[in-house]
Amino acid sequence: MNDLIKQFNALDEKLKSMSYFLALVEFDGATTAPKKSFKERSIAISNLSQLYYQTLVNENTKKLFEDLDKLKNLDELTRDKIEYVKKEYIKTSIVPENEFSEYAKLQVLAGEAWENAFKNNDFKSFAPFLDKVIAYQKKLIEYKGYEANPYDALLDLYEADLTVEKCDLFFDKLKKEIVPLLAEISKNGKKIEEKIFNKSFDLDGQRKISDKLMELVHYDLDGGLLKESTHPFTTGLSKHDVRITTRFYENQVLSSVYSTIHESGHAIYDQSSKDEIGFSLANGGAYMGIHESQSRLYENNIGRSKGFTKILSELFKETYPELNETFKPEEVYEEINIVKPSLIRVEADELTYALHVLVRYEIEKEIFNSDIKVSELPALWNKKYKEYLGVEPQNDSEGILQDIHWSLGAFGYFPTYALGSAYACQFVAKMEEEIGFTSLVEKGELLEIKKWLNEKIHQYGSTKKPDFLIKNASGKDFDPSYYTDYLNKKYRELYEI
Amino acid sequence: MNDLIKQFNALDEKLKSMSYFLALVEFDGATTAPKKSFKERSIAISNLSQLYYQTLVNENTKKLFEDLDKLKNLDELTRDKIEYVKKEYIKTSIVPENEFSEYAKLQVLAGEAWENAFKNNDFKSFAPFLDKVIAYQKKLIEYKGYEANPYDALLDLYEADLTVEKCDLFFDKLKKEIVPLLAEISKNGKKIEEKIFNKSFDLDGQRKISDKLMELVHYDLDGGLLKESTHPFTTGLSKHDVRITTRFYENQVLSSVYSTIHESGHAIYDQSSKDEIGFSLANGGAYMGIHESQSRLYENNIGRSKGFTKILSELFKETYPELNETFKPEEVYEEINIVKPSLIRVEADELTYALHVLVRYEIEKEIFNSDIKVSELPALWNKKYKEYLGVEPQNDSEGILQDIHWSLGAFGYFPTYALGSAYACQFVAKMEEEIGFTSLVEKGELLEIKKWLNEKIHQYGSTKKPDFLIKNASGKDFDPSYYTDYLNKKYRELYEI
Repeated sequence: MNDLIKQFNALDEKLKSMSYFLALVEFDGATTAPKKSFKERSIAISNLSQLYYQTLVNENTKKLFEDLDKLKNLDELTRDKIEYVKKEYIKTSIVPENEFSEYAKLQVLAGEAWENAFKNNDFKSFAPFLDKVIAYQKKLIEYKGYEANPYDALLDLYEADLTVEKCDLFFDKLKKEIVPLLAEISKNGKKIEEKIFNKSFDLDGQRKISDKLMELVHYDLDGGLLKESTHPFTTGLSKHDVRITTRFYENQVLSSVYSTIHESGHAIYDQSSKDEIGFSLANGGAYMGIHESQSRLYENNIGRSKGFTKILSELFKETYPELNETFKPEEVYEEINIVKPSLIRVEADELTYALHVLVRYEIEKEIFNSDIKVSELPALWNKKYKEYLGVEPQNDSEGILQDIHWSLGAFGYFPTYALGSAYACQFVAKMEEEIGFTSLVEKGELLEIKKWLNEKIHQYGSTKKPDFLIKNASGKDFDPSYYTDYLNKKYRELYEI
Repeated sequence: MNDLIKQFNALDEKLKSMSYFLALVEFDGATTAPKKSFKERSIAISNLSQLYYQTLVNENTKKLFEDLDKLKNLDELTRDKIEYVKKEYIKTSIVPENEFSEYAKLQVLAGEAWENAFKNNDFKSFAPFLDKVIAYQKKLIEYKGYEANPYDALLDLYEADLTVEKCDLFFDKLKKEIVPLLAEISKNGKKIEEKIFNKSFDLDGQRKISDKLMELVHYDLDGGLLKESTHPFTTGLSKHDVRITTRFYENQVLSSVYSTIHESGHAIYDQSSKDEIGFSLANGGAYMGIHESQSRLYENNIGRSKGFTKILSELFKETYPELNETFKPEEVYEEINIVKPSLIRVEADELTYALHVLVRYEIEKEIFNSDIKVSELPALWNKKYKEYLGVEPQNDSEGILQDIHWSLGAFGYFPTYALGSAYACQFVAKMEEEIGFTSLVEKGELLEIKKWLNEKIHQYGSTKKPDFLIKNASGKDFDPSYYTDYLNKKYRELYEI
């Protein structure tokens, strides 16, 4: 093997090792670590982040990437891996070393501050941290540069080549189609009662259902596991160690059901990079829109479909036999798809979900394009909820404090949640043509679906960008009408309008 | 602050951060990680170990330690911390870099191989790994050098300044006193029936008892937690994050009880370094004999005492009210102290425990002083069990494969288990004089005992060596007769001989 490639592989493996530990400590912090542990954890994270930086950004790696650029006739995979790690190098090297590691420390402290603020409904205590996190994002934008809009610099971090221009087109279409559809449903839609799931379901049963769901979607639990955390998430440590979390509430059984399916969708993606990618930074999916398309596909296109409703009803009957009579598939289907504008994004129905994201997108755009102050954000948040969803938070814990993302500095991330749903619909349309998606779901043959996704998307890990993957899977460029058509069809039928 | 001290502190914090992650991944691997994860984990560990090595061993740190040596008038704590980290530097720098990180990888693979061999009772599959691990130890001995005996080089790694000469004196005394005492007990001792604990105790109840025990000994669970693993252990990540594991068997309730108390003793030590030590390599106890003295003190001197028996009986009555009549303190005391030569060290009674250690000590001494082959070790093991304990393993899983230690390369470690028991007796004798140990245990006032240990031992973390700590706590140099006197008194009374 070429000596430069060997050097590259060694560098890649070293960086992946460090990112492995950073991911592990994050997972541990959210699921396991005792409460007094966070200060020393933040010191450890800061030191390892600094080492990561030093390993990635130095004269030797600069030279290495320059030399690699000159190599001809590289095989495609090697070239793609180099390309990906080089992007990581560029993204990291624009930030000075001390700012990079200070920021890692800030993220832990801000995450902790957010958690306390959320628990105590106390935005003021979190505001100074949020202020610092935003200040860092603004510096990052300057370091990174942008063409049309400062916010572009952040969007691209989560979904390569995403811009405000593209997002505006997408969200404008959603606003134009979903807001009126929602109005029509409230005005003329059939009334759906909540009678099946709005009662208490014991946690042991919920745990059993989660276990069965993970099995059903073929999430490989010999290389994965389920834990609990405040905010469900997926951590891919390696191809053979991809972990998810969920949350169990006695009075909201659907919360654990759909969190588990959702995160399993993420996990399946990260478990399925081709072996040749190895223990590399490029293992597992890196682009959040595509990642979210997988979780949303499992959660909604599969999990909230008519076909799956039958399977889910059977699962509930087995687990809660005393409620046997209650679980009629047609009624379950209606109830899990009930449209109910609400305050909390992660508990939102499939239709209004995108509007929650819209609120966050518009606020983020404002933050990076105006002089708005952190102290003004809660009011702006509440105003937009009123405008798009017709509901208003009574306090910040059910408003602006509900998500951890901003405390971690994840600005530019939220739009990918809605994009993911839209990509998913485009993929499903193609699967319908090629392998008969609806009928596979009805028969519970989810392995066929996983295989299709493996081949079209998962196998590439992070070596291909979103635009490639979308075309590779669906045969077309991204087209949001698959999503709006899907929503219109599904909800007009359901609500008989 | 002196610039050199600042440099030292930064180096120390960086090293501590890396050792934090290495400890975390070890804890995670033993308690949580999915089964397919180990290969990539071993790569990650190897890479981080290499970084640890490179951070500790280089021209800059060499110069730093030389410069620090010239500093006058350092305060005691700073001097001790520097001393400790410098020892770590010397210990590490004697091994070439590539061997150091290869060995870290080997440890993970050998650990995995051991686990499989143990499960399948298949020493042969483990032998090649053990062979490599021993070969590395032999090289290490040469790198490190020694005065009297090659094995000294390893003993000193776990208990500073420990030698074969000291161990021989200690173990000879044990052999002279315990082997005949044991013979006398089997011959003339009163017969004690096993009737209270040799039944099934449901795991929920066992978990509750473990929770109460941790509380009772004042292990701070806001900075700690309990998980399960095959082999119970303690991991001190930082002063505010010290975790323990135990194991629950339905038919061996005393296993979880005493593992939990034992590991809590370790945890209390690691939680109690003085604040000024900070997030440093010198935080928490580093010398295994002293560490084991704390766990043994809690497990035996407290946990198997008459006074504690009353508390334990109450705990069992509360937890298993249907067996209320069974738990008579006098009978419980007899049954938890029953002497029964057995095959498994971690389930051994307090008296025969040291003989299990003796077997391992003699085998290790032989390995590093003769040409004995790995394939000959199982037979040697069985022979010694027959000789000292009068029992013989029927297979290697209940023989030489029972402990994980050798797979991790922990040669020189086992003797500290017996030394710890002996130190504990010397500390208890002093506590009896100063604060009335027996009466505190009877009253369940264990906080007073913790405070005494905090002051005499724990607060120093790793900044003081065993000889200092023993004298600081007991006012005297180490004297094994405290241990043999304690055993003679306790067991002669119990067995009425």
